Amino acid sequence: MIKYPNGKTFIPNKIQDKPKNKKASLTSANRGMGLEHDINLSNEYYKAKDIALITKRPTPINVVKVDYSHGAKITNAYFEKQSTTDYNGVFNGTYLDFEAKQTECKTSFPFSNICKHQIEHLKSVLKHGGLAFFIIRFCYYNETYFVHANVIIEQIEKLNKKSIKYEDIKTLGTLLKENYNLRVDYLVVAKQCIK
Amino acid sequence: MIKYPNGKTFIPNKIQDKPKNKKASLTSANRGMGLEHDINLSNEYYKAKDIALITKRPTPINVVKVDYSHGAKITNAYFEKQSTTDYNGVFNGTYLDFEAKQTECKTSFPFSNICKHQIEHLKSVLKHGGLAFFIIRFCYYNETYFVHANVIIEQIEKLNKKSIKYEDIKTLGTLLKENYNLRVDYLVVAKQCIK
Repeated sequence: MIKYPNGKTFIPNKIQDKPKNKKASLTSANRGMGLEHDINLSNEYYKAKDIALITKRPTPINVVKVDYSHGAKITNAYFEKQSTTDYNGVFNGTYLDFEAKQTECKTSFPFSNICKHQIEHLKSVLKHGGLAFFIIRFCYYNETYFVHANVIIEQIEKLNKKSIKYEDIKTLGTLLKENYNLRVDYLVVAKQCIK
Repeated sequence: MIKYPNGKTFIPNKIQDKPKNKKASLTSANRGMGLEHDINLSNEYYKAKDIALITKRPTPINVVKVDYSHGAKITNAYFEKQSTTDYNGVFNGTYLDFEAKQTECKTSFPFSNICKHQIEHLKSVLKHGGLAFFIIRFCYYNETYFVHANVIIEQIEKLNKKSIKYEDIKTLGTLLKENYNLRVDYLVVAKQCIK
């Protein structure tokens, strides 16, 4: 059974603590480096320590023309839309699948950059017994959250929301700790979701 | 626990039935279509019937130059070596990961086109509780086999083999049935491997 970490439930429009108006505490180690980079480093750590095997799906590219005169140089190609998610893998025998997103917005996370196919994909993951979630970073606060896919699915499909408030992410998600070796230790939270 | 289907064990150089020297029974439906195409169709079927969610990893491409004057056209890029496998996904809560290979060779499946990284990847999958396997097609016989990753790992690492005999694949692997909707029904065998 897969459950939300800490048994949290969603209460729409609940009055939360106001976000602290602190500036992002960027260090020289992570300045200019994005969420994807931090997750890739964390995955390398998990792999090196034999904790889990999580890989990033390569960006799908539609290759139109290849020049074989000097090796195999692609001379005409286009990026394709990712119909699945960024990452998947295995942890303690459980299939994990997640999408990583960061936003510059201070007050909410907009759903505009999550496509319908990705939501369908994550719903299917849950249906087949996997754990599906989002890793969402609020760049302004330099805070990264683990948010179970059901939270986002509920907001989009049941509540017809176009975004989720920062305060709701704070309540419904779990703030991820950061350290030098393990930039985003999302498996600590994933473990709580897997019974 | 993950076990071999039918509890088969490997007996090196065991005298097997000689391969039937029959020609590939290609029909108009599969002529010219490769194993990858057949697996993709099977995965679509599994998805449509809510049986499992298995996706193909896109080919990794190193993008060097993008021309943004007309949309985003990639004008210089190179194929990167796949360090993982072709497919992964979730079936009945279990993580599956496999590589698909076909050979024109009649007598054996050569390991020359399996890279060391892929073997390491599949070993890691097994270590973390996933199911790792190969789908191997002998084009000459038009036969496709499910072969547990441990069989191939043993041949390469313990027996120092450069290939596995067709007769051994017949004994250690499981011949996959083919029908119109489900070209390679590998989940029937995967199910037997998952306790």
